[in-house]
Amino acid sequence: MSSSQDLVKCSFNTDDMGQLLYKENYHKWIKVQELIAKDPILQNNVADYGQSRDKLYEIYCKKAYKLHKLLNYSDEMIPGMVNSQFPETVVTVLHQTMFIPTIKYLGTEKQIEKWIPPSQNYEIVGCYAQTELGHGSDVQSLETTAVYDKGTEEFILNSPTISSTKWWIGDLGLTATHAVTHAQLFINGKHYGVQTFIVQVRDTHTHLPLKGIEVGDVGPKYGYNTKDNGYLRMNNVRIPREQMLMRYSKVSKAGEFIKAQNEKIGYATMMQVRTSIIYNTYVSLAQGLAIGVKYSHFRRQFKDKNGIERPIIDYQTQQDKLIPLVADCYAQGFGCLRIRDILTENLKRITEKNDFSLMGDLHALLCCCKAVYTWNTHFGLDKIRQSLGGHGFLQSSGVVSIQTEFAPSCTYEGENTVLLLQTGRYLLKACNKAQKHQTINENVEYLYNIQQTLSQKATFTRAEQLLCPEIIRKLMRLHAAFYVNKMMLKMMEKAGEHGPKEAWNKHVGVSITEASIAHTYYWTFKTFLDTLIKVQDENIRSVLSNLCCLYGLQRIIDWPIGYFEGGFLNGEQLEIILNAKEHIFTLIKPDLLGLVESFKFNDNALRSDLVDAKPYEKLLQSAKLSSVNNEEYQNKLRSLTRQLREMPKL
Amino acid sequence: MSSSQDLVKCSFNTDDMGQLLYKENYHKWIKVQELIAKDPILQNNVADYGQSRDKLYEIYCKKAYKLHKLLNYSDEMIPGMVNSQFPETVVTVLHQTMFIPTIKYLGTEKQIEKWIPPSQNYEIVGCYAQTELGHGSDVQSLETTAVYDKGTEEFILNSPTISSTKWWIGDLGLTATHAVTHAQLFINGKHYGVQTFIVQVRDTHTHLPLKGIEVGDVGPKYGYNTKDNGYLRMNNVRIPREQMLMRYSKVSKAGEFIKAQNEKIGYATMMQVRTSIIYNTYVSLAQGLAIGVKYSHFRRQFKDKNGIERPIIDYQTQQDKLIPLVADCYAQGFGCLRIRDILTENLKRITEKNDFSLMGDLHALLCCCKAVYTWNTHFGLDKIRQSLGGHGFLQSSGVVSIQTEFAPSCTYEGENTVLLLQTGRYLLKACNKAQKHQTINENVEYLYNIQQTLSQKATFTRAEQLLCPEIIRKLMRLHAAFYVNKMMLKMMEKAGEHGPKEAWNKHVGVSITEASIAHTYYWTFKTFLDTLIKVQDENIRSVLSNLCCLYGLQRIIDWPIGYFEGGFLNGEQLEIILNAKEHIFTLIKPDLLGLVESFKFNDNALRSDLVDAKPYEKLLQSAKLSSVNNEEYQNKLRSLTRQLREMPKL
Ligand SMILES: Cc1cc2nc3c(=O)[nH]c(=O)nc-3n(C[C@H](O)[C@H](O)[C@H](O)COP(=O)(O)OP(=O)(O)OC[C@H]3O[C@@H](n4cnc5c(N)ncnc54)[C@H](O)[C@@H]3O)c2cc1C
Ligand SMILES: Cc1cc2nc3c(=O)[nH]c(=O)nc-3n(C[C@H](O)[C@H](O)[C@H](O)COP(=O)(O)OP(=O)(O)OC[C@H]3O[C@@H](n4cnc5c(N)ncnc54)[C@H](O)[C@@H]3O)c2cc1C
Repeated sequence: MSSSQDLVKCSFNTDDMGQLLYKENYHKWIKVQELIAKDPILQNNVADYGQSRDKLYEIYCKKAYKLHKLLNYSDEMIPGMVNSQFPETVVTVLHQTMFIPTIKYLGTEKQIEKWIPPSQNYEIVGCYAQTELGHGSDVQSLETTAVYDKGTEEFILNSPTISSTKWWIGDLGLTATHAVTHAQLFINGKHYGVQTFIVQVRDTHTHLPLKGIEVGDVGPKYGYNTKDNGYLRMNNVRIPREQMLMRYSKVSKAGEFIKAQNEKIGYATMMQVRTSIIYNTYVSLAQGLAIGVKYSHFRRQFKDKNGIERPIIDYQTQQDKLIPLVADCYAQGFGCLRIRDILTENLKRITEKNDFSLMGDLHALLCCCKAVYTWNTHFGLDKIRQSLGGHGFLQSSGVVSIQTEFAPSCTYEGENTVLLLQTGRYLLKACNKAQKHQTINENVEYLYNIQQTLSQKATFTRAEQLLCPEIIRKLMRLHAAFYVNKMMLKMMEKAGEHGPKEAWNKHVGVSITEASIAHTYYWTFKTFLDTLIKVQDENIRSVLSNLCCLYGLQRIIDWPIGYFEGGFLNGEQLEIILNAKEHIFTLIKPDLLGLVESFKFNDNALRSDLVDAKPYEKLLQSAKLSSVNNEEYQNKLRSLTRQLREMPKL
Repeated sequence: MSSSQDLVKCSFNTDDMGQLLYKENYHKWIKVQELIAKDPILQNNVADYGQSRDKLYEIYCKKAYKLHKLLNYSDEMIPGMVNSQFPETVVTVLHQTMFIPTIKYLGTEKQIEKWIPPSQNYEIVGCYAQTELGHGSDVQSLETTAVYDKGTEEFILNSPTISSTKWWIGDLGLTATHAVTHAQLFINGKHYGVQTFIVQVRDTHTHLPLKGIEVGDVGPKYGYNTKDNGYLRMNNVRIPREQMLMRYSKVSKAGEFIKAQNEKIGYATMMQVRTSIIYNTYVSLAQGLAIGVKYSHFRRQFKDKNGIERPIIDYQTQQDKLIPLVADCYAQGFGCLRIRDILTENLKRITEKNDFSLMGDLHALLCCCKAVYTWNTHFGLDKIRQSLGGHGFLQSSGVVSIQTEFAPSCTYEGENTVLLLQTGRYLLKACNKAQKHQTINENVEYLYNIQQTLSQKATFTRAEQLLCPEIIRKLMRLHAAFYVNKMMLKMMEKAGEHGPKEAWNKHVGVSITEASIAHTYYWTFKTFLDTLIKVQDENIRSVLSNLCCLYGLQRIIDWPIGYFEGGFLNGEQLEIILNAKEHIFTLIKPDLLGLVESFKFNDNALRSDLVDAKPYEKLLQSAKLSSVNNEEYQNKLRSLTRQLREMPKL
């Protein structure tokens, strides 16, 4: 366990808190970390940082099959747990999280039987090839074509334009033998929309690209150095009819197209993946915080009045950087646990009762939580890195790789703005329904009697009152109602002037995203509160209650504008909120180390020199392992720098 | 010039705007770019992305001496102009921007004569070794020692602890032969504080470390791949007495310490460097915006009601990401021009009249502008990258390297929070002086009669009124006064309870940073306004006026809390502000391409496939040049992936 464990003198038991955060997976979480930490191939090695892409790829290939041998990858939790353990992405992660699940969800029984066992054995390795150079967010406009040839009972796949080149596809550049590919289906010249196909891209023995396939790596990126995001161009590539995934939509031998009964189900894979991204917003932020909080207790800078150097965590500004993020991290963790429950319930209803009723609500929730939480973790990690001062820029701080690996989460699996617009559409519909007194999901119950709601005002007059989450919950509920209402009014006004589509895109976009964000804050706060009131342990409930209040107050402080526009708060109340926040800091500070200890990362998982018992010794030691410090390189260099110095004299 | 120039149909002449942004350096800026673009060693090459550190270092060494041959580096503007031209930092940049200037500012005439010519000829290459593992922000607590040995007339330098290891020193890891080093001076056992020494670290012929010197690279980092940030440990390293920089403080042969008459002057180097960092907040943001704005006019996603795909710039949300940053960029550009003028004036007063009166004001201004502008550019670049969707993550987008190279600006040359606290201290003093009716600098004139000021309220009632910058200026002035006053009240209250030092660090820190930020916003707005009213050209003045208003309004929208606490604005006025912002978007949008064209980057400087006439073709072409796509690597890989697939069957 972590080396600063001895520092923990906190008001609650961190194992019990850990159980609350990981629930039934608590022991698995600890065990997976132990397994990885003691395996010589899997354990993290500071010398791997800064390796060239090819060397890194090799190292992470080895890790991939070691993991595959050690762990049960059909256990849904495993890929997510494994990802956080390494500074770079493990090769074949897309195979595990996208290729296999897509076939499981969209394939027929027969297709599953055919493709899943060899996939699980790594006889084939797949990827998920949806995005093209020209279109990512707008899937309906993909340009790749799949034309059915009745004569041979094959589909012929083509990349008709440069912009139709598949692009960004993880595991495709170097690794994959197969791709789940999205293409516009044509039968007898008639267009049937985007369908999903399994296309073999490389020979499973020679690993050479097959005929008609042009495939490669998209080139260097921001982070993701081990990951072979690839491109794919197809020129008359023929695949058997059985390689269209046909659980829902089908094409018969004769070329008859049978439409899916319920198209929504095609979205099931995405739901799973989005949930794991949301979970990762918790894990990555937790990892960053574990490093940031521990180091801030160790690092000392400037002397106090007694000439003793202060640990930087004592500075109010440093607390302001880290403590609110701890609250966010717990909020996101509990939010995700709740989403997982809803996801399970949804799948159960679908498979057991063909009941799709939860689908829309869950979709809306996933979209906004994915957007809001990924952004928060993304910016939070940057704040943490900066809070480490210069050392935060070193790979050996551990935070750099967490940050660069996390960053694309804001973009892939639905670009965040585009996702917020989707939740916005749902909220608009719900608002209309509520006005007509139709049933809407409990998550948006605040939309009933909205005008009455909006006439309320905050009544608190003292900071202590804000230690009660219920008061904050009511405020945040008003705030969500205010922004959904504002969006609706603006949409009505602008649709009148410009028509609904133009209004939506050109005039109301910002309001729509605001409504989604306000809704997400409220839902997250509510979920946090629901979680904590069920906690038996009084010590834990008490610290969680403070974190929950802080989560809410920080949202108000960072984005108070609606509270004023709506007339819910006045200037004095805002000052009270600021004071309450300061007060909560003093309550949480003694428990800070305990709160990050509860995330239960072992030292290997944190892979940070800054949490070592002797950070400075460790940093120096790691530096000496850096490849540019070895003798061979230094010799080469000497001639280079001599040249540099002697040049001008020529 | 840029390939999207043909798109420019804007209301003003972009060359004239460029002249306003670069003033007397306009032609130099164009010329330097041309020179670099056409030189085969200097011009950017997409194949360089993703190279290993050693290969990159080699490439950038070659660039360094080519630049040195082509350009006049003693021209102050050159290093800054050159830096923006390459995706990675050019080797020896610290030699140019820190080593040489430190000697020039802190050295005696004799020292300058001895060290500058060989430095300018690259016979020696230097670095600036201040920071240690244990102390960065707190320079007074550095642990390196320099003990004067009267017998030999030498200083003996030592790194007595691990935490005293010099760390992060740019150009030290591989390149430097010499270091300007900060150490605690001791003479006859008596301590004389931190002084500055020139220490030779490597032999100028063999390039091997000298006796007693342990030196190396600190290891892989976030970005900065070409840069050999290094560490240094010294064990009884002896240097002649003449290698202490003695323009101000001196040590005589006999070991007598003569204290500097005015210690502030030692800070002059830093002032120069901070100014160039501030200038770079403009250049880097401008570069990012040129890419983001152009690509957003090209990229199309989703069809409009006529089935035509919309350029993404048409989405309100996309405008909201980019347009305010354009305003910020102009504001920061003009802010920096003003700072440069003050810097010049300050140096003139010092050298001509030994008049240090401007020093304190300039210092305070540099600290807060450095902090606020670097953060804004840092977050702005991230927003721009995300606004490019997936393609933003590619190195070939150009934005990734701008972002990673820029990031440490928030930390080095004064960690941002620490700098804001310094300006806060200045503001507090100024506030006290103003209360006593003593003279204070015009930048803080708002502190006179502060109570009267704070009783004011905004009176506007219509969005059109907010097209007048003067109304916004008054509001922002109130806001600055409010936060300085708030800090002062809080400081008085908390100092009473805890004593001034504890209060400052533990209880008022956040308020202090807020006061500094509010002050920076107001100063920047005022400077923007001062600039634009002097513009003769009506078209330019009109677009600048809109940008200036937008700069101010966006500050209010993003951070409205003080306007409410202070009672300066009510909820309805806030709504008017939001409407005014939307209105300004419609005014600026047609000029957007012109506004980024005015930054006058050529294609080589932008080094972005996304601004090519055919971006998708170009991206694909660049990908093919990626090192992992070459045949040799692919062959090696094939055996690796085969292994990966065949493993589990064993
Ligand atoms: C590291 C990484 C890994 C990836 N892996 C895979 C993979 O394995 N398989 C795969 O298929 N794809 C993958 N992708 C692609 C990813 O899914 C897309 O990049 C993502 O969906 C965003 O789409 P885009 O790039 O087209 O962005 P764009 O849609 O072009 O976004 C650009 C800008 O336009 C805005 N915009 C677009 N539409 C609208 C709208 N309607 N309203 C308002 N604003 C709009 C966006 O908000 C954004 O600011 C990956 C991407 C990355 C970065
Ligand atoms: C890429 C890079 C290049 C560099 N190049 C050089 C170089 O060439 N030469 C050189 O000498 N140095 C160099 N540095 C070092 C740099 O100058 C320091 O990292 C910087 O000054 C910050 O100091 P620190 O690392 O000690 O941060 P710390 O002071 O340890 O900061 C850590 C945290 O503590 C907080 N903190 C510290 N003091 C206070 C306070 N009084 N009140 C409130 N909060 C506080 C900070 O706000 C921050 O959140 C470089 C650094 C980097 C990242």
